[in-house]
Amino acid sequence: MTMHLERDLEKLRKSLLMLSSHVEEAIGNVLQYMDQQDDATAKRIQELEDQINDMEVDIEGDCLKILALHQPVAADLRFLIVVLKVNNDLERMGDQAVNIANRMSDTKDFAELRAQLNFTNMNEGVRRMVRSSLDALVQQDVELARKVVSMDDEVDAFHAENFQTLRSYSHDHPDSIDGALAFATISSNLERIADLCTNIGEEVIFMIEGEVVRHQG
Amino acid sequence: MTMHLERDLEKLRKSLLMLSSHVEEAIGNVLQYMDQQDDATAKRIQELEDQINDMEVDIEGDCLKILALHQPVAADLRFLIVVLKVNNDLERMGDQAVNIANRMSDTKDFAELRAQLNFTNMNEGVRRMVRSSLDALVQQDVELARKVVSMDDEVDAFHAENFQTLRSYSHDHPDSIDGALAFATISSNLERIADLCTNIGEEVIFMIEGEVVRHQG
Repeated sequence: MTMHLERDLEKLRKSLLMLSSHVEEAIGNVLQYMDQQDDATAKRIQELEDQINDMEVDIEGDCLKILALHQPVAADLRFLIVVLKVNNDLERMGDQAVNIANRMSDTKDFAELRAQLNFTNMNEGVRRMVRSSLDALVQQDVELARKVVSMDDEVDAFHAENFQTLRSYSHDHPDSIDGALAFATISSNLERIADLCTNIGEEVIFMIEGEVVRHQG
Repeated sequence: MTMHLERDLEKLRKSLLMLSSHVEEAIGNVLQYMDQQDDATAKRIQELEDQINDMEVDIEGDCLKILALHQPVAADLRFLIVVLKVNNDLERMGDQAVNIANRMSDTKDFAELRAQLNFTNMNEGVRRMVRSSLDALVQQDVELARKVVSMDDEVDAFHAENFQTLRSYSHDHPDSIDGALAFATISSNLERIADLCTNIGEEVIFMIEGEVVRHQG
């Protein structure tokens, strides 16, 4: 490996680390915002989203430059392809954080319904998947990546539980339909974040072992 | 360009064309399935999904092989990166088709609610976006790609209209909450397909003009 390729890959690793930490902060903020809606947190989520979007464009540009300049092969090539895909997934996780924050405004009058839903466990599951998938990526930890993939079922189960609660609660409280639709969307957004973490876990496994594990569930 | 690179890129173009036509068929089938749920169509959607998943893995493998073997630059490199990303988007469109088909089973008893929702226009918009984004990709038509990006707002508006209808209808018909939640999810899935078409349109613009247009909306 040439000195220049090594230097450029190191720079890319740092950019990805920075993007990951922004995404983790955005998700952390929005989970906190679900418990308490204050303007400062909403503003911070939007700021992070703008930065995440800019970083995503820069990282993709850097990947293309490295591919064109250094024409890397084997593990370096696989790393670059994984960065391109994970970069995309991370940006979409940022989008979901903004979607959830926006949708929270429709839930203000439905504290009683909110108390019935299992966001405590679901959000804790999402938080762990975000942290573990980004740790697996940064530390190239294939065992942790496999753990992330296996955690998705748990979040899916909380999502299904929430839908069941929304159904039964709305039957008894027809006036809560606006809240139920908003919480249904939020629960779907959270489940989508977990799916994106699973994708990252699968990409890390591919990067390290060369094995395609997606579509095996 | 070497003969071998030209031959491999041509093979990749054909694979992508085949994947596109499978995805278009899956989406066409699920839109038809929304109007009439028959077992043959449900089975066909699942068959297509399995084939789409296999094709996606193969296409990614082919891209990596071409990158490693031929170390392409400039337009060829950009084409390969776009194929990698679009490949991913197409596979996710197939997932959404399956999600919609599965969710339709929860809507059987809600024909009256269904009649109030604007799926006729929304589905027509989605159908046009799918066809146009795949045509833009295959024919490398940047004007059509720009048209696809501009069509997304229309589908978003139908999605918002559906949510509004679901809210007001459920207020008057509290027993329809199960149907409302199912249709809300289906409308979200359709909107997500339109988003993925928009991504493809943006990738086509990038491939041809080298301009990053995402995050400009």
